[in-house]
Amino acid sequence: MSLSVYKFGGTSVGSVEKIKKVADKVVADYRKGTKVVVVVSAMAGETDRLTKMAQSFSPNPSRREMDLLLSNGERVSASFLTIAINTLGVEASSLTGRQAGIVTDSMHSKARIKRIDVGRLNEIIGAGGIPVVAGFQGISEESEVTTLGRGGSDLTAVAIAHALKADQCIICKDDVDGVYTSDPAVVPDARRIPRISYVEMLEMSGLGAKVLHSRAVEMAAKYEVPIKVIPTFEEGEGTLIVKEDKRMESEIVSAVITDKNQSKITLLGVPDSPGIAAQIFGRIAKKNIVVDMIIQNVGGNNKTDLSFTVPQDDAAEAKVIAEDIADKIGADNVKLDPKIGKISVVGVGMRSHSGVAARMFQALADENINIMMISTSEIKISCVISEKQLKKAANVLHKVFDLGA
Amino acid sequence: MSLSVYKFGGTSVGSVEKIKKVADKVVADYRKGTKVVVVVSAMAGETDRLTKMAQSFSPNPSRREMDLLLSNGERVSASFLTIAINTLGVEASSLTGRQAGIVTDSMHSKARIKRIDVGRLNEIIGAGGIPVVAGFQGISEESEVTTLGRGGSDLTAVAIAHALKADQCIICKDDVDGVYTSDPAVVPDARRIPRISYVEMLEMSGLGAKVLHSRAVEMAAKYEVPIKVIPTFEEGEGTLIVKEDKRMESEIVSAVITDKNQSKITLLGVPDSPGIAAQIFGRIAKKNIVVDMIIQNVGGNNKTDLSFTVPQDDAAEAKVIAEDIADKIGADNVKLDPKIGKISVVGVGMRSHSGVAARMFQALADENINIMMISTSEIKISCVISEKQLKKAANVLHKVFDLGA
Repeated sequence: MSLSVYKFGGTSVGSVEKIKKVADKVVADYRKGTKVVVVVSAMAGETDRLTKMAQSFSPNPSRREMDLLLSNGERVSASFLTIAINTLGVEASSLTGRQAGIVTDSMHSKARIKRIDVGRLNEIIGAGGIPVVAGFQGISEESEVTTLGRGGSDLTAVAIAHALKADQCIICKDDVDGVYTSDPAVVPDARRIPRISYVEMLEMSGLGAKVLHSRAVEMAAKYEVPIKVIPTFEEGEGTLIVKEDKRMESEIVSAVITDKNQSKITLLGVPDSPGIAAQIFGRIAKKNIVVDMIIQNVGGNNKTDLSFTVPQDDAAEAKVIAEDIADKIGADNVKLDPKIGKISVVGVGMRSHSGVAARMFQALADENINIMMISTSEIKISCVISEKQLKKAANVLHKVFDLGA
Repeated sequence: MSLSVYKFGGTSVGSVEKIKKVADKVVADYRKGTKVVVVVSAMAGETDRLTKMAQSFSPNPSRREMDLLLSNGERVSASFLTIAINTLGVEASSLTGRQAGIVTDSMHSKARIKRIDVGRLNEIIGAGGIPVVAGFQGISEESEVTTLGRGGSDLTAVAIAHALKADQCIICKDDVDGVYTSDPAVVPDARRIPRISYVEMLEMSGLGAKVLHSRAVEMAAKYEVPIKVIPTFEEGEGTLIVKEDKRMESEIVSAVITDKNQSKITLLGVPDSPGIAAQIFGRIAKKNIVVDMIIQNVGGNNKTDLSFTVPQDDAAEAKVIAEDIADKIGADNVKLDPKIGKISVVGVGMRSHSGVAARMFQALADENINIMMISTSEIKISCVISEKQLKKAANVLHKVFDLGA
């Protein structure tokens, strides 16, 4: 008997009608003889509503309080979905993060899962029921409610799938029917990818493809949990995310990813002495802010300029840290470029094909697109460019690497 | 250093502005050197909103799910108030029922508090902070979230005040500034009572005075926790609820209570054999429905009519039980009178004064008010009358027993 862990995001459970349809979908699979676990996000808009209310009391509420507050969003949608499933005549029980046994560290708002005590989950499944788990949350060893940060519900689903040795983790999306070669809103030619490797998906998520959060893909890759991304309210094959196989390597580039959600911070006139980068990025890492690209331009007078990019949401906090360090080390100035564009190409085929970077740079140059920063890995090349040129760049690269339908 | 447990109901925390004022009030007392614990209800309307949403999935969702769902309302308001208090520069931590150590039995939707593990509460208070507890909820030994039923937040506050040996439990009300001799909406002459005994308050709450739930008063009486009922947003002496003392006995009647929230159920043509009352009321008690008044009229043919009153909300359920039993024992019929009026007078002075009942019945008779059922205790007399005559009856009795200002 196979076991599937379903995950439904906020828009998929965004109304009474949608929750009823989700219940139908889950129960239809259950009635085929599948064992089912469901993970849900808060109803669309609820997390924002709670956050805004909290901010009407304080611009910066404590993370501990915010975790306790926001965890209610997922608890509520889990209860609603459970009641909807019960109404269809199938036993279901909603579980809070704590009740689902999700034990995390104590890093509020960005907690990491330490382990999952699956006793209660197995009890419900064993009795023929469907556990409906409030995503995004867990409990620390100190009995505090924690949240897992962005993409937390995806992570909950993958972690539970691994802990229960599920056959697959099915991520249901209301807005897309799978993983695409590029964002269709940016590149009209983009097409669904039927099958993609963990490493490519990981790069794509890290680069800003919103379909799946990279932490979830990372965990799936580590434990080889097969993920399927399918549409919530339609039939559709979706995209299967699995271990890399031979045929994937025939494609040089699998996808072109655009990202408008990064900011660039530059420390100008940094004295050229060792250990400064370590200071800055050590302190930023402590805040759990992910630094994406780093560049250092050696200038005159033994001074250098140091630029790095961070998610826009973290830019203000990162700038404060940068300014503090700039002060201490006698740098001239800190500059924040709040909106930059990042364009990337991803593909496992790059490993065995040379010249991909050159083709990319040439294609951008042909369109008069200036490259500000470059970063590469084994299977991806990213360029920071002006945000305004992002759309043009994406369409050009999608065509150059022959990704269209 | 004195310790006060404050409780704020749904309307007192019904908006951002109100929550800020509540934070001001609590912090003002804290800054005078009082140790403070706060218990809050869900924001006004929130419990209804969640309940209605749940009912759009099922007319009768499981109690276990409803408890988990509704508990979020109080958790959210506790978080908001905590953030508001923190903003004033005072350390506060919101606590769920579980985190506040409130352990209950497993009777979902009407759980009873078994004990309070005060470790966490004392830890926060000891560190100079203010614990803000989500009222109305607890956790069972099986780790399930439970709710305490109507008046649950009052009960939470009194139970915590007892467990912490607090000097007083302060119930803050948005709609009244204390306990009144009668409902001012019904009796314009009604006046605030500065000081009243537990036993009187208990009768008044049991009779439908909405200012305090009887379970909370009962617990306060049992452990002699002084309760103060004061207005949330104004200055005011309010009403102190304490152990009976000499001067209270000089008043024969302390208050006139009206109640429109009762229903009457009558079993017609019940065979006059022993054990039938036990059957009915045993089964109703098992559902945790409180039967208020019971009357049995012996008729002809060895048959009797049996009438009893229950809260309107429980009437449908009680009727189903009554019909089932009527079937089994061969009674003729079950009749539900969904809306009746109950008028009561309460006073510890009754113990030492005779003739109160006679005066009450005469006053009602003078106004042509027909009495359908009568029930008495040492310190109260209640009559069921037509709901339409309730207002007139209340004003007459308020005058007859000289309760006006």
